Amino acid sequence: MSTDFVFTNVRPNGAAASDVVIRGGRIAEILPHGAQPAVAGLSVVDGESLLMLPGLVDAHTHLDKTLLGMPWYRNDVGLELIDLIENERLMKRELGIDPARQSAVQIERSVANGTCHIRTHVDIDTEYGLAGLQGVLASRERYRDIVDIEIVAFPQSGMLIRPGTVELMDRAMREGADVVGGLDPSGVDRDPKGHLDTVFAMAERYGKPVDIHLHEPDALGVFAIELIVERTRALGMADRVTVSHGFCLGMLADKPLARLAGMMADAGVHLMTKGGAASPRPPVLDLSEMGVRICSGSDGVRDTWQPFGNADMLDRAAIISQRNDFINDVHIELALDLCTYGGANTMALEDYGLEPGCTATFILVSAETRADAVASRPVRRAVYRNGIAVARNGALVAA
Amino acid sequence: MSTDFVFTNVRPNGAAASDVVIRGGRIAEILPHGAQPAVAGLSVVDGESLLMLPGLVDAHTHLDKTLLGMPWYRNDVGLELIDLIENERLMKRELGIDPARQSAVQIERSVANGTCHIRTHVDIDTEYGLAGLQGVLASRERYRDIVDIEIVAFPQSGMLIRPGTVELMDRAMREGADVVGGLDPSGVDRDPKGHLDTVFAMAERYGKPVDIHLHEPDALGVFAIELIVERTRALGMADRVTVSHGFCLGMLADKPLARLAGMMADAGVHLMTKGGAASPRPPVLDLSEMGVRICSGSDGVRDTWQPFGNADMLDRAAIISQRNDFINDVHIELALDLCTYGGANTMALEDYGLEPGCTATFILVSAETRADAVASRPVRRAVYRNGIAVARNGALVAA
Repeated sequence: MSTDFVFTNVRPNGAAASDVVIRGGRIAEILPHGAQPAVAGLSVVDGESLLMLPGLVDAHTHLDKTLLGMPWYRNDVGLELIDLIENERLMKRELGIDPARQSAVQIERSVANGTCHIRTHVDIDTEYGLAGLQGVLASRERYRDIVDIEIVAFPQSGMLIRPGTVELMDRAMREGADVVGGLDPSGVDRDPKGHLDTVFAMAERYGKPVDIHLHEPDALGVFAIELIVERTRALGMADRVTVSHGFCLGMLADKPLARLAGMMADAGVHLMTKGGAASPRPPVLDLSEMGVRICSGSDGVRDTWQPFGNADMLDRAAIISQRNDFINDVHIELALDLCTYGGANTMALEDYGLEPGCTATFILVSAETRADAVASRPVRRAVYRNGIAVARNGALVAA
Repeated sequence: MSTDFVFTNVRPNGAAASDVVIRGGRIAEILPHGAQPAVAGLSVVDGESLLMLPGLVDAHTHLDKTLLGMPWYRNDVGLELIDLIENERLMKRELGIDPARQSAVQIERSVANGTCHIRTHVDIDTEYGLAGLQGVLASRERYRDIVDIEIVAFPQSGMLIRPGTVELMDRAMREGADVVGGLDPSGVDRDPKGHLDTVFAMAERYGKPVDIHLHEPDALGVFAIELIVERTRALGMADRVTVSHGFCLGMLADKPLARLAGMMADAGVHLMTKGGAASPRPPVLDLSEMGVRICSGSDGVRDTWQPFGNADMLDRAAIISQRNDFINDVHIELALDLCTYGGANTMALEDYGLEPGCTATFILVSAETRADAVASRPVRRAVYRNGIAVARNGALVAA
C-alpha cells in the first residue's frame, strides 16, 4: 500500500469524526470528516468511525526470557527475590529459553496488540554473557519494519557482587544496547554508592540513558532514589533516567512522598510502574499531579517468575486503573496516557502522537471513548507504523 | 442431544486423560481414557484432551444494574461510597437501566464464559421498590435451562435509615428472593445492632441464608464481623452466612487477623472476596489456611460505579492471584478453587464437582493445567449444564 492516503471518519483520541491525511509515513493533516470531500490524488480508507490512538508503548518488558509458546512451567519456586533470580538463571538452560526465539514470540504478540515501541531489559550476567543481548538484537533486526525496540543492558543477577559483570555490561553497551540498567543497589549489590557510580559512569561514557530496577522498600528505596536524583542532576541527565517499579513510593506518608516526588519531578527522573500485584504501588495520580513523568510496561510476560501477562498495553492500562482505584474517566485516561504518551516521553520518541507532523503510527479500535478502550480492550482492528499497516484484527499482516 | 454419552479423552481438573460417562445429566463414571473401548449404547464425544473444570461459580454480582451493551457512561462521580450509591439511584432512571434487559445481557455473557451458578444481589429501595427483583426474576425464569440464579435482597441505599425499606425487603423475601442481604451496619445504617438484628430476624423468619456487604475499615469492620459471628452462632446458621468484601480483614496485623479468622472459621461465616482494586484485600492464602471458607464473584460488571469487569470467573481467578501475589501453581489453583468449589460451598450447591454422582455441569478449555487456565483464560470451548451443552466457543448454543 502507498503510504499516502486519507483515513476518513476516524476519531483521533476520541475527538469528533475526522479525516486524517497520511503522506510519507506521517500525519500531514487532520480535517473535520467530510469537510474536504476529495483530497486530490490520494486513495481513501474508510475508518468506520473507529477510535484512533497513538501506537502503544511498552516501556518495560523482558523479551529475552518469556516462556510464551513454550510448555507450561509449573512454578513452585520460593517467593524471595533472590530465589526467583537464582531459579531463573538455572531454568534458562534447563528449559532451553532461547532469547531470539522467545523475544520473537513476544514481539509478534505485542505488535498484534498495537504496541509500536518497546523498551526491553535484557539480562547480562557471567553465566550467559551476552547471549540475551545477541538474541534480542537478532529479533530487533528481524522485526525492524514493524516495531521499534530499545534495549537496556540489565544486570539481573547483580553487578558488583558478580565480578566480570561490569565488563560484560560495558561490552553490551558497545555491541548494541541503548540504555544502562541497574538493580537494587543496596538490596542486591550491597553497595549503593558503588553500584550507582558504576551505572552512571557507564551512561556518561556512552552518552546513554539509565533505567534502574528498584524493588527496595521504605527508607532503603527512598535513599536509592535520592542517590539517583543526585547523580541525574550532577550529570545533567534530566529526562534520561528512569526508576522502574519504585515500590517505596507506595509506602510513604503524604509529606515524605511529596518531598521525594518533588525531587524526581525537578531532576527529571521518570518512574515506570506496572501497577501490578500486591506490592505497594506508587500512587499514579498523586505522583502525576506532583509533576513526576510516568510510563508503564508489561514487565515479565509469562516467565519463570510468574505466569501472567499478555503483552497488551490496553490491558496494562486497565490493571493500572484498577490498582489505583481509578473509576472516573479522566483517571482511566491518565492510565492510558502512561501506556502511550508517558512511554514515548521516557523513551524520547520523536514526533510521537496524533498531531500533524507526527509519524503515522497508531492503532484503530472499536470503542466509544478512550476510557472505553481501556475497559473493553477490544481487538486491535488495525495497527499502523509509519503509515503502513503491520497488524489487523489481532494478527500480524504478512510481511 | 441425548444426555447419555461418553466424553472421551478429557482431563478432569487436570488429571490424566479420562473418559467421562454422562447419564441422566450426571457424571456416572470416570474411566482411564481408552480403558473400556465401547460403553454399550452410548454415543461418544471426542474431548480432544481438553481440560475439564467444574462449572464456574459467580457468587457475588449485581445483574440488575450492569450497563453492558448500553452506550458508554462517562463517569465523573465523587469517590465516596455514598456518592456512588446516590448517583446510581439517580442514573437508573436517567439512563433507563432496565433490570430485566440488563440482567439478560450479563447472564448471556456469563454463561458464554462458563459460569453455571450465579448469586446476584438485587437492589431493594424505596425509590424503585421491587423493580430490580422483578426484572431479575423474569431473567431467571427465561434462562432457567442454562444457569442457576440465586437472588439476594440487597438494601443498597440503606435499610433502617430509609423507612419503608425493611417492609420492602420482607416483600422481596416473599416474592422470590433466596437470601437476606445487608450493608455496612454502622457506616451506612448507623445502627449495627439494629441492622444486624433485623437482617438475621428476617433470615430466621424465612429460613434463608444471609449475605452482608461489609466495606467498613479497621476496628469498625472487625466489630461488625464479631456481631455477625455472634448471631450466626446464636441462630445455628453455620455455613449460611457470608461477609462480602470484608476489607477490614486486609487491614489487620497477624494476631488480630488470626483471632477474627478463627472466629469466622469456627462459626461457619464465609467470606466473599473479589480481590480487586486498591482497597486492602483480605489475604486469601492466610485466611484459607486458617479455615475460613472463601468464594468470589464479579461484583459490579460495567456499572455506574466503575467500567471494568467482563463476567469471566477465570479472569476473576487471575485478578485474585495477582492481587494476592500468587505465582506458585498451588496458589493459583487456590484462586481457581474460590471461583468453583468455594462458590459452590457458599451457595450450598448439591452434587457439585467432577466426581461420579455429581451433576454433569462443567466447562472444557484448551489449557495444559488448572493454573494455565487461569493465566491464559482461553475461550470456553464448551459449557455443559446437567449434561447438555449450553455454550460453545464463547457463544451460547441457540435454544
